[in-house]
Amino acid sequence: MTDITFRRAQASDLPDIVAMLADDPLGAGREDASLPLAQGYIDAFNAIDADPNQLLVVAVDGGEVIGTLQISFLAGLSRKGAWRGQIEAVRVAGHRRSGGVGRLMIEWAIDACRARGCSLVQLTTDKGRADAHRFYGNLGFTGSHLGYKKTL
Amino acid sequence: MTDITFRRAQASDLPDIVAMLADDPLGAGREDASLPLAQGYIDAFNAIDADPNQLLVVAVDGGEVIGTLQISFLAGLSRKGAWRGQIEAVRVAGHRRSGGVGRLMIEWAIDACRARGCSLVQLTTDKGRADAHRFYGNLGFTGSHLGYKKTL
Repeated sequence: MTDITFRRAQASDLPDIVAMLADDPLGAGREDASLPLAQGYIDAFNAIDADPNQLLVVAVDGGEVIGTLQISFLAGLSRKGAWRGQIEAVRVAGHRRSGGVGRLMIEWAIDACRARGCSLVQLTTDKGRADAHRFYGNLGFTGSHLGYKKTL
Repeated sequence: MTDITFRRAQASDLPDIVAMLADDPLGAGREDASLPLAQGYIDAFNAIDADPNQLLVVAVDGGEVIGTLQISFLAGLSRKGAWRGQIEAVRVAGHRRSGGVGRLMIEWAIDACRARGCSLVQLTTDKGRADAHRFYGNLGFTGSHLGYKKTL
């Protein structure tokens, strides 16, 4: 566990990241990890990488990408102009799940948000992800909100 | 109702916007609308205004600011690289509530997200805002997620 490091994702990590997004009960129906990757993934990576308020991260162990998440640093007027760090698209590689990697990743993300001056970290998870609710509760998050989505 | 227009917020709108954020059961304990405004609000406005992926909006009727919301346009890999529009800090001036202004604002925001190429619009509301849950359900949103927050 102590050899896990975190770094900004590079374009060469994209196949590994998309494979993790797809290897998930909900992601399986929404993603397409076949190679070459769909252009949408490449365009999205470039947009994230060019935006100083977006940070796509990979967790690496011995050169192998074993996890990913994205942080959006959001300026807002609420709470006296507090910056928020929003965590999205958290995934751990299948063979490394339930081994504490997710906890390390979220703790790293919280530290990154603090370092950027955020006074709040927020995220949403699908109501069906019971394990995730327990996980975030254990990490000190409060499930105080309902998350609404509308597809266009 | 037909005279309501929407535009990007200007620095001169800031006192009106903060007053609306504070005039709210939850905002009352978190905001400070006293003048001159706390520097945090001004810094946050400048950060929002400088970020091409943030849009702070006011609804105006006859020159009077009667509503506000913020849209964050978020690039992400999930859903084959879909852009998301995230709506935050939705408020309608006290004397104009329950008159359809909120619906116009959200419909305007959804159109703005569509125009920016988003394929998903998302938002969270505090679990305690029962009226808001009915409101967003009526506008075609699905409350599929739980929203977690952690203060730093």
